[in-house]
Amino acid sequence: MTDLALAPRRRGGRAMRRAARTEVKIDMLPGLTNTLPPVEVMDAEQVTRIDAASMDILENVGVQFRDPIALADWKQAGAKVVNEIVYLDRDLVRELIASIPASFTYHARDPQKNLHLGGRHAVFVPMTGAPYLRDLDDVRRNPTLDDLAMFHKLSHMLPAMHSSAHHIVEPMDHPISHRHLRITYSSMKHSDKMFMGMTTSPKNAEDVLDMCAILFGAEFIDSHPVTTGNCNGNSPLVWDETMLGAMRTFCRRNQPVLCSPFVLGGANTPASVPATVAQLNAEALSALAYTQVIRKGAPTIYGHYLSTVSMKSGAPMAGTPEISLMNFMIGQMARFYDVPWRTSNTLGGAKTFDAQAGYESAATLSAVLHAGANYIWHSAGWNEAGMHCSVAKFIVDAEQCAMGYRMAEGPKWQDFDEALAAVGDIGPGGHYLGHDHTQANFQDAFFMPQMFDNNSIEQWAAEGSVEITERALRQARKLLGEYQEPMLDPTKDEELRDYIARREREIPAAAELNQTH
Amino acid sequence: MTDLALAPRRRGGRAMRRAARTEVKIDMLPGLTNTLPPVEVMDAEQVTRIDAASMDILENVGVQFRDPIALADWKQAGAKVVNEIVYLDRDLVRELIASIPASFTYHARDPQKNLHLGGRHAVFVPMTGAPYLRDLDDVRRNPTLDDLAMFHKLSHMLPAMHSSAHHIVEPMDHPISHRHLRITYSSMKHSDKMFMGMTTSPKNAEDVLDMCAILFGAEFIDSHPVTTGNCNGNSPLVWDETMLGAMRTFCRRNQPVLCSPFVLGGANTPASVPATVAQLNAEALSALAYTQVIRKGAPTIYGHYLSTVSMKSGAPMAGTPEISLMNFMIGQMARFYDVPWRTSNTLGGAKTFDAQAGYESAATLSAVLHAGANYIWHSAGWNEAGMHCSVAKFIVDAEQCAMGYRMAEGPKWQDFDEALAAVGDIGPGGHYLGHDHTQANFQDAFFMPQMFDNNSIEQWAAEGSVEITERALRQARKLLGEYQEPMLDPTKDEELRDYIARREREIPAAAELNQTH
Repeated sequence: MTDLALAPRRRGGRAMRRAARTEVKIDMLPGLTNTLPPVEVMDAEQVTRIDAASMDILENVGVQFRDPIALADWKQAGAKVVNEIVYLDRDLVRELIASIPASFTYHARDPQKNLHLGGRHAVFVPMTGAPYLRDLDDVRRNPTLDDLAMFHKLSHMLPAMHSSAHHIVEPMDHPISHRHLRITYSSMKHSDKMFMGMTTSPKNAEDVLDMCAILFGAEFIDSHPVTTGNCNGNSPLVWDETMLGAMRTFCRRNQPVLCSPFVLGGANTPASVPATVAQLNAEALSALAYTQVIRKGAPTIYGHYLSTVSMKSGAPMAGTPEISLMNFMIGQMARFYDVPWRTSNTLGGAKTFDAQAGYESAATLSAVLHAGANYIWHSAGWNEAGMHCSVAKFIVDAEQCAMGYRMAEGPKWQDFDEALAAVGDIGPGGHYLGHDHTQANFQDAFFMPQMFDNNSIEQWAAEGSVEITERALRQARKLLGEYQEPMLDPTKDEELRDYIARREREIPAAAELNQTH
Repeated sequence: MTDLALAPRRRGGRAMRRAARTEVKIDMLPGLTNTLPPVEVMDAEQVTRIDAASMDILENVGVQFRDPIALADWKQAGAKVVNEIVYLDRDLVRELIASIPASFTYHARDPQKNLHLGGRHAVFVPMTGAPYLRDLDDVRRNPTLDDLAMFHKLSHMLPAMHSSAHHIVEPMDHPISHRHLRITYSSMKHSDKMFMGMTTSPKNAEDVLDMCAILFGAEFIDSHPVTTGNCNGNSPLVWDETMLGAMRTFCRRNQPVLCSPFVLGGANTPASVPATVAQLNAEALSALAYTQVIRKGAPTIYGHYLSTVSMKSGAPMAGTPEISLMNFMIGQMARFYDVPWRTSNTLGGAKTFDAQAGYESAATLSAVLHAGANYIWHSAGWNEAGMHCSVAKFIVDAEQCAMGYRMAEGPKWQDFDEALAAVGDIGPGGHYLGHDHTQANFQDAFFMPQMFDNNSIEQWAAEGSVEITERALRQARKLLGEYQEPMLDPTKDEELRDYIARREREIPAAAELNQTH
């Protein structure tokens, strides 16, 4: 005998199986406190080198702000502005980013679901922005508002999801110009977890925050983060008017934004990991600094979107070793500046929910946890380079996040002495299944993934050879059958509906429905 | 615009595509020097606590050595022996394990493929022991000696595989009692990388080492490791006669063994991660110590096989958070004792090469690299709890190992200043595809996985909607078509064949062929 090919099957006692059936259902894990020491692939000198390189870029190459208001703001703040290029002195940048809170608390509709962000505190947020879905029958098609509601319901029920996000899928059955209203309402209505806010234009952002003011109170949100906006940069070194306008809306009202350079490594950055990080870091710093020009002390988050580009085909890639390395490095830079940071989870380019999707997603989940990321976006459903959100993958990714969460909690020592005593009780050659300590602790000791099938092939075949996609879709249908809508104050609900009705009268509906942004 | 759903496709220049087509083929990456700082989930006090708990187990609970020779050896070495239970004093254990080399060099048939092991030096070794394969048509069936040869050829050609291992699949068309001879010959003949040695009995182990003596010279192997044997423990706290006999054969001839407790967490260990590690550590230490009783200074490797058991079904599980945590902890213990250590990669329970297989494999690969493992076994092909080796998965896992290798090398700084200069050249809003630095460096800057499809769904569909299993099988067929057998000295080849012929005459053939061990 060398390694056993198949471990012997031993059965737990009846009590164990009964206990396993009556697990308590919870709809949200507390915010993650990541106990893993972050993986640091740079020494202190290398961190300083990246910082210096980024500051050199900001001082000498400059950043293009394609937005007259931002350019005026920068002049006012003392930056050198030539045409649309802003040259930022490193002392100014350091002075500005110093007022960014190192951590803050997100407030959810259910205060039990408030979440800390920053330092060791992290949250998992589902994917967003898909123009297609793979639905409950694994059919790829354009999504509707009902499909979006379905994903918001699933986000509400999946314990490792800390947010219902916003447009997980694009509701193609509603005019583009009205979507942000329906999307926001759906996030608010179908879940009492925190959610994201649309940044598709400054006016849309205003609508989102007006709706937040209805839900939480205008005064409350001015001092309490309740939503998150994302602002993408156009790498290399450009921020555009739409994003900057939305950024101003959020920051003025004290709501956090993700300052996210959009990196296609090798195409819009140098063909070098450290130089890509230096450029990305310069881009992020320029936006982080600008948030503090808008409102000093406003909470804000170091962001990025990372892919590398295949030089053979031009396609963006995910789950590659350089993306993991850049996550580790960006984490180090964010900690160097003492600001919270955002990353992307489970990205990938597979067309179906196949092994490629599994490898890509797990490699990324592991990297972002070891990198110590705070705002872990795109944590469920992402496939096909973000072109579709898969219901099946949404379920499995969410369970993977729960497993990552468990890993990041670290080993549990509280019953160590008791467990050790069992070794003496059992002695050489025995087994532990009947031991009191096992009976009392098996539920918590080892994670049992529901979406993985670990039975023998004979048992699997006897049960119909059900593969993971169908197992996950069954679980999705089960969850949706059990879904209970969290009570929304009827007065607020009416006020929100009135607001939407009024704005939909005011905003001209775009002619065509089926167009993505 | 929030996160772009699909990144724009930009094309590299013609020169880039030509360069990409003419990549130099190599058949082995150098041994990995893992630059990642190992993830340490225990502080120094917790490491000491595990050590103390293990030593308490060795002193007070004892370990059963079901083998009269080992019991006599232990008495001779000064241990307390009661019936078959050996009680090991911690001072004796520490004194014995002190002579284990912290690192050593494996010698391969091609000296260019010699490999360091221990410290930061690591190797990837394919899976072994499968009683079934999924073949070049993804059909699940019993393997033959030809199938085994196919896997040895693939191991030879896949750059991240550092070994051809031994019985990747069980050659069911040969009598069990003769298999070890044919397996060893196949490993030696089809690859000039290092290989593993069968430990199915002490006599079989003698045959393997006699064959090694033919290949390398008897004197040479007495001072140079050329193969690796695996010896599984029966947890809790038992070592059996077969394994101990094979261990003696290897150690006496100075060849390394993996001292591998076989852990089904929760079934043959306590339902606690730290207590499981304490027991496993005691088991490993007892065998590591015994190797030094056999031959002081013999190279040997801290081993283990880790799964956790589903208390719902009794099935072993892989890719779970506790397995990652235990890998991190075992790594810490091995470094505490300053001995090289072995782990298992890409384990999982999926029945097909589906998303489950991808998640499990990638989660494990990541964990073992972050844990700083040295001998990374079962790195390609494993599926269905080891019941089958999949050709498709073998190919993809090997590429994943190459990606993990790249990650573990860390960021490359050598062209940092040059790459930074490109940022100034390009400036805000440009792109890097035509820049000289990109042209010169894109091949090395970002890994381009061949087995992942990152094209648009339209392009993928136009090319026949080929999924990952078929892509990988095509690659396997291509590699086998290009395979060139590494020249084996004809005199040695004849001597090996004569040895096998003689031993097959001497050893009675078991009646039935189709039986796995």
